[in-house]
Amino acid sequence: MFDLLSKVRDINPLVLHYTNEVTINDCANITLALGASPLMSYSYEELEEIIPLASSVVINIGTMNSSHIDLFLKAGKIANKFNKPVVLDPVGAFATKSRALLVEKLINEVKFDVIKGNSSEIKYIGGFDVNGKGVDSFEEDENIDDIIKKVSKKLECVVVATGKVDVITDGVKTIKVYNGSSKLKSITGTGCMSASLIGSYLGASENKLEAASMGILTMSLCGELADKGNIGIGSFKVSLMDNIYNLNEETLNKFSRVEVF
Amino acid sequence: MFDLLSKVRDINPLVLHYTNEVTINDCANITLALGASPLMSYSYEELEEIIPLASSVVINIGTMNSSHIDLFLKAGKIANKFNKPVVLDPVGAFATKSRALLVEKLINEVKFDVIKGNSSEIKYIGGFDVNGKGVDSFEEDENIDDIIKKVSKKLECVVVATGKVDVITDGVKTIKVYNGSSKLKSITGTGCMSASLIGSYLGASENKLEAASMGILTMSLCGELADKGNIGIGSFKVSLMDNIYNLNEETLNKFSRVEVF
Amino acid sequence: MFDLLSKVRDINPLVLHYTNEVTINDCANITLALGASPLMSYSYEELEEIIPLASSVVINIGTMNSSHIDLFLKAGKIANKFNKPVVLDPVGAFATKSRALLVEKLINEVKFDVIKGNSSEIKYIGGFDVNGKGVDSFEEDENIDDIIKKVSKKLECVVVATGKVDVITDGVKTIKVYNGSSKLKSITGTGCMSASLIGSYLGASENKLEAASMGILTMSLCGELADKGNIGIGSFKVSLMDNIYNLNEETLNKFSRVEVF
Repeated sequence: MFDLLSKVRDINPLVLHYTNEVTINDCANITLALGASPLMSYSYEELEEIIPLASSVVINIGTMNSSHIDLFLKAGKIANKFNKPVVLDPVGAFATKSRALLVEKLINEVKFDVIKGNSSEIKYIGGFDVNGKGVDSFEEDENIDDIIKKVSKKLECVVVATGKVDVITDGVKTIKVYNGSSKLKSITGTGCMSASLIGSYLGASENKLEAASMGILTMSLCGELADKGNIGIGSFKVSLMDNIYNLNEETLNKFSRVEVF
Repeated sequence: MFDLLSKVRDINPLVLHYTNEVTINDCANITLALGASPLMSYSYEELEEIIPLASSVVINIGTMNSSHIDLFLKAGKIANKFNKPVVLDPVGAFATKSRALLVEKLINEVKFDVIKGNSSEIKYIGGFDVNGKGVDSFEEDENIDDIIKKVSKKLECVVVATGKVDVITDGVKTIKVYNGSSKLKSITGTGCMSASLIGSYLGASENKLEAASMGILTMSLCGELADKGNIGIGSFKVSLMDNIYNLNEETLNKFSRVEVF
Repeated sequence: MFDLLSKVRDINPLVLHYTNEVTINDCANITLALGASPLMSYSYEELEEIIPLASSVVINIGTMNSSHIDLFLKAGKIANKFNKPVVLDPVGAFATKSRALLVEKLINEVKFDVIKGNSSEIKYIGGFDVNGKGVDSFEEDENIDDIIKKVSKKLECVVVATGKVDVITDGVKTIKVYNGSSKLKSITGTGCMSASLIGSYLGASENKLEAASMGILTMSLCGELADKGNIGIGSFKVSLMDNIYNLNEETLNKFSRVEVF
């Protein structure tokens, strides 16, 4: 699946984002770094016109901006109408009722191709117990493999649970990514940016499991490569972008630690 | 008070921000760099639910986004209801009547624990004359010590006036921070980020004067340490984040220039 | 015209932005890097008060945020009322009817001093055919010189068309900037930031053609200087900011490749 990287760079897919205000700049830059084109809109007026132009759509509920709640829902439905692959990042789904309610609506009314969250978010969406704190809860769970398979079958989409080991499944086949760096949790937006990467690969491949896995692998591997010695998080973020921009199949072949089940 | 740094890293307080769109990403990253967890929301719906989860709340009126004016007010009141420490950054309070009016309302209807501004903002809030330009006015004033003490007593909270020398007071005890770099004014958001640092320390300490002082000292000292030779402001910003991430008590003991009155 | 740089640093103009949420932080930082002061507002309430304080106003429709569409229009009109120079960045004007409609309204109801776009945007505004993709379309056109002259005469303002060669005209005199780097398209916001630079120079000069040309030259030259070897785009962005901060007349004289027609 490593050849997806050059496909992204050849095809240059247009990744339309409906996302939060915190990491919107990082999401645009990482999309460009990979070789795709980012497009960000907060406009109700142009939904019907702009979604047909996109290769894929990423929906991230991050700051739960009251002005954008309906925008997220409408964007998802219109993406379905035009058969555009849609990625959901249900940030902090378990943290408040408003988030839970919006995510429930999104899942009920929109058919997502990929749902990406940390393990707490994915467990919550699947109806499992969660002990979360804020929107950045990361907890390891030994049953996460079984849980995300169930969630994937229930929601009929590819599910990604990020964590120390990232797990991606389409309900039948499961891919695990062992690359990573603890520093990826020390800068904001690496989760959001992973969704942008998934959106970029989805714009270049029909194989959703591979697209999602490549998005996660790209972030986890480049984070690992950027984490040299006592690097501070300012330099780490710069190096993360550099590593994604310079990523090639040789590096993927040499350093990826991925297992398929 | 230097041991507050390790307390932040142990406790990992959740710092909830209602802030501007310009520096929201920097505020999240600096909160992470210090060792706390940032949370940003623009949602009216989740106010009552998300504020109880927070360790502290930071309110910054930066861009005066018309959609968020009531959000700031409500967030402040609910923070009071749940006894969460609240920091106010009254950006450009003196620049327009709308800002002055909002700040007046905030101060009248919300009990703040710390108000942090540049000396012009603090003087204006205290009812003194101001010759400001835009929202970034920095002017030195020889009577600033007396003025902020009066403002502190009047508003019954810790007051921070940033400038060449930063002055922090609870109305009785005053702390001055002599560290700093002129480059801190050459990147956007160092004021906003200082409020995030204060919020982080407030989430780890009952002593508000110390928490506010540590927030200011962290920014001023790390700015000073980042300002090496002819460094440009792109590199300076990266190095500022690195220095905050790598800050420890040894560095605080060695380089801090602080006086208590 | 290279002496405009030191004028910006002496005068320190206040550049008021009504802009998108993606690149708002970068726009603020590049304004500071050049030596001007940025101010960002999303407030309807303070329009009449804050625009008189500004040296120039930049309007960028980037994300087409539904809440800000009227804000852009009102800001433009009030800027005219107070005789403040106004720059328009009509991002993706050709991409959707909503964008086209807003740009049409803006151009009909506001007298702009400078309109800056990529060649597709400028051609569209002038009523020429466009084959655009998303909002970042860059296409070369051999007739661009004639086209932008016509657009400039029609709209009675300075027009900038960015591309491999940047072309700036007041309808009579045309300036071409041959500096640049392909990496400027690999980070988000270099177009938006160019408008901030133009706004900064406009705040320091009556000569709009020179101000617009210096804004474009500053970006293209500093991009060229930042593009060393195999630099990744994280490092490139940092170096771009450093180069703008450290730019001086000597560097402008030595490396600028500009022609006047």
